[in-house]
Amino acid sequence: MTDWTEGAAWVGGEIVPLVDAKIHVTDWGLTRSDITYDVAPVREGGFFRLDDYLDRFEASMAALRLDPGVTRAEMKSALHAIVARSGLRESYVSMTCARGRPLVAGSRDPRDCANHFYAWAVPFIHVVKPEVIARGARLWVAKNVRRIPEDSVNPRAKNYHWGDFTAGIFEANDAGYDNVVLLDHAGNVTEGPGFNVFAVKNGRVITSDHGVLHGITRRTVLEMCAEVGLNVETRPLPVDELLEADEVFLSSTGGGVMPVVEVAGRIFGNGAHGPEASRLAALYREWIRRPEWREEVAYAA
Amino acid sequence: MTDWTEGAAWVGGEIVPLVDAKIHVTDWGLTRSDITYDVAPVREGGFFRLDDYLDRFEASMAALRLDPGVTRAEMKSALHAIVARSGLRESYVSMTCARGRPLVAGSRDPRDCANHFYAWAVPFIHVVKPEVIARGARLWVAKNVRRIPEDSVNPRAKNYHWGDFTAGIFEANDAGYDNVVLLDHAGNVTEGPGFNVFAVKNGRVITSDHGVLHGITRRTVLEMCAEVGLNVETRPLPVDELLEADEVFLSSTGGGVMPVVEVAGRIFGNGAHGPEASRLAALYREWIRRPEWREEVAYAA
Ligand SMILES: Cc1ncc(COP(=O)(O)O)c(C=O)c1O
Ligand SMILES: Cc1ncc(COP(=O)(O)O)c(C=O)c1O
Repeated sequence: MTDWTEGAAWVGGEIVPLVDAKIHVTDWGLTRSDITYDVAPVREGGFFRLDDYLDRFEASMAALRLDPGVTRAEMKSALHAIVARSGLRESYVSMTCARGRPLVAGSRDPRDCANHFYAWAVPFIHVVKPEVIARGARLWVAKNVRRIPEDSVNPRAKNYHWGDFTAGIFEANDAGYDNVVLLDHAGNVTEGPGFNVFAVKNGRVITSDHGVLHGITRRTVLEMCAEVGLNVETRPLPVDELLEADEVFLSSTGGGVMPVVEVAGRIFGNGAHGPEASRLAALYREWIRRPEWREEVAYAA
Repeated sequence: MTDWTEGAAWVGGEIVPLVDAKIHVTDWGLTRSDITYDVAPVREGGFFRLDDYLDRFEASMAALRLDPGVTRAEMKSALHAIVARSGLRESYVSMTCARGRPLVAGSRDPRDCANHFYAWAVPFIHVVKPEVIARGARLWVAKNVRRIPEDSVNPRAKNYHWGDFTAGIFEANDAGYDNVVLLDHAGNVTEGPGFNVFAVKNGRVITSDHGVLHGITRRTVLEMCAEVGLNVETRPLPVDELLEADEVFLSSTGGGVMPVVEVAGRIFGNGAHGPEASRLAALYREWIRRPEWREEVAYAA
């Protein structure tokens, strides 16, 4: 009687319903947020760019000296298996490696811990709801909180250190906005909870190269820009440049390319989606169907 | 046949063996480290300063807009109950409030989540092993990582954002040291993984007031200094002042007052514990027995 469409998970070598996927309260993945993860999309029944997500996941684990204890081939087959079991054609597929618990009682040394891999697949999650994008998403720039700097926590090793984002989300909600972007300590635009941020000005596309996760969707955007002949600048993006842009959009596995119509009181294009953002959003929907990027899931008939 | 001496937990209103205490892999307490906790000590069969730990825990929850869904009296009785059940006379007692999972499927808004409280008690954990203190603890000053600044994540709301500490621990271990202290971005001493840091110079005791958790043991140290007539300065502590101190010591619930004999190559007092640190360490062992600070646990006979 399990409703697998709520999600399926791979934990300790077994496939279990999402509801049974738990980790121990003393796992350092929780108590020290000593953990890394990645999220790959399943769209229309197939993974998009799965190898790129796995490459990033492996790089994150190496950066944090985490060993999943399973091979890449085993991880891949676990991801396919949970999506197939769930039956979900549109899925948010999360893979995780946690530090685990010390094998030596009372140890405070991460080298004493048994690291472990687990994964779960749930119905696709949009970082900004499609109806919010459709009516015009409004983005807040956090005033009271700054993005954790990269010499404190490496943002390229995908991590759960979201205290800054959470504070920013509350601030945005209090101000009546849909979502938030954080600045670094020098006043440059970084990223938001689950997305990278782009400005378009005079036909050039600008996005930060520092203090941010190098999103796979960000990479897809940069590659799409190259294909359609848009100039790209990856460099620090001062907040004033964002506010004076012609267009602003976000990129995320959880939604692709997402036009924004307002940033902190500045309205772009009279509140309509910008032409370049719209073009890239449409192109992304095309790219996720390209066979060379896809791995179809073998669902039960 | 449960071995309760490994620990007991309170989860969802029930007392369970530690091994059964788990949280869901999609809980935002994990996936966003959107969680706060506190740790109170049980020493010689009684809690020390439990009300102060609960005050701090409640302040942390308020700062993060978390609602445990239980009263303070209920939390307190849960803590007493798990320690009594475990039978542990020396225990590390952790209380936690997590954001939980969204009640609205796919929501990205923390206001949609069902927050929850849980707690667990395990055998007492020393942040630095007593045998390491005894033979002379050696502290490293991290070079490649800085403490997360307070305008990114509030260090006074006790949190699991330990990525900076973990990087520092690896750096210390690689350099052959026992533990690590992190500097802030201005080069001042902050804290280490589970402890505050003090310098003693010409009879004055100096510890940072910014960018750190206000430890309950730190407060006990400040109060003990007042009692014995030691002058205290709570202010930014430049790393050079730490290196040029007469004595250095650490404070933590997980060990009380802990003398250190070396910081990054600088050896204090010819490698012996300093007189003020030793005096305060002894006094702490006395204070934890003071009836006015204690709540005895009612163990089963
Ligand atoms: C902090 C952060 N930045 C950016 C992104 C976007 O990265 P990607 O395009 O790989 O989803 C994410 C994704 O979840 C994220 O968590
Ligand atoms: C980051 C940090 N600083 C300082 C401390 C010391 O605080 P307390 O004396 O309340 O244990 C802790 C305790 O665990 C801590 O985690």
